[in-house]
Amino acid sequence: MKKERIIIDMDEVIADPMGAMIDWYLREFGGHIDFARMLEGSWSIGFPEEHRHLIRERLHQPGFFRHLPVMADSVRVLEGLNERYDLFIVSAATEFPNSLKDKHDWLQEHFPFLNWKQLVLCGDKRLVTGDHMIDDHVRHLEHFPGKRWLYSSPHNLSVTGYDRIRDWKHAEEIFLG
Amino acid sequence: MKKERIIIDMDEVIADPMGAMIDWYLREFGGHIDFARMLEGSWSIGFPEEHRHLIRERLHQPGFFRHLPVMADSVRVLEGLNERYDLFIVSAATEFPNSLKDKHDWLQEHFPFLNWKQLVLCGDKRLVTGDHMIDDHVRHLEHFPGKRWLYSSPHNLSVTGYDRIRDWKHAEEIFLG
Repeated sequence: MKKERIIIDMDEVIADPMGAMIDWYLREFGGHIDFARMLEGSWSIGFPEEHRHLIRERLHQPGFFRHLPVMADSVRVLEGLNERYDLFIVSAATEFPNSLKDKHDWLQEHFPFLNWKQLVLCGDKRLVTGDHMIDDHVRHLEHFPGKRWLYSSPHNLSVTGYDRIRDWKHAEEIFLG
Repeated sequence: MKKERIIIDMDEVIADPMGAMIDWYLREFGGHIDFARMLEGSWSIGFPEEHRHLIRERLHQPGFFRHLPVMADSVRVLEGLNERYDLFIVSAATEFPNSLKDKHDWLQEHFPFLNWKQLVLCGDKRLVTGDHMIDDHVRHLEHFPGKRWLYSSPHNLSVTGYDRIRDWKHAEEIFLG
């Protein structure tokens, strides 16, 4: 039987650039992050306006995406999914050319059971087809022809109209339970 | 009206890694390329066996894909296609992690009218959908749900069963004529 295909996003879903950026910012500049504003749709607007260009710069620097924390339970659950499903990691990464190799290397380090054929680095996820898509952004989900799963993240908590995945334990129940 | 989507491959279609590799090999080692063997399905087997590991190494080196020649007429024709169609460049590149940024930068240099949203770097083109795919490899075309166009290249001249695009002037007649 043909395996169902699951398309999984990278940032804020299996990797944690928001957490890494907050940690870095607090180390460099101390407090003043507006966590309430992060709930409004983009986590970058939670940083003070006078430092927001530094956040942007950091996203473009080689190395930033190479050293991101891994989302809790994602390695174990993806290893299970990889046996039962046709699994792909699809990341909107071409906006940040220096992230491309970093994302490849990060995935190889933390998810060594995935191979290079299972990674897609793109700008526009409208091209991609499959049976399920797990993503934290409505703009990536809304054109997807299969089942759409909104992966919960601070910036999307007010979004309605999508079935949610709260975390990887929840995904484990849904897809492997 | 919704524009038709065209998916265009990079290597041997708009970029010329085979030509660049042959030039380099002739400069470094002189003759002995077996052009007849290059017609058998993979251009790399045309190089003498004792040097084939050097060809492989070179494909993995940073910089190789950054300085490739551009296929004749491809810039002019893609600029025209970009106005009339929903255009994407999709390259099976994740096998060569050092090529990822090189391919992005090469495209930006030679095709500046395309933006980062129009580039997809992947390993497996089965995920990608559209109305037309132009590629030099049957393995990428055979799963594509839309119209399949085999872009002629020395390694695929014996392939039958596909409509061919001989070169970019031919593509211009088909899509813009």
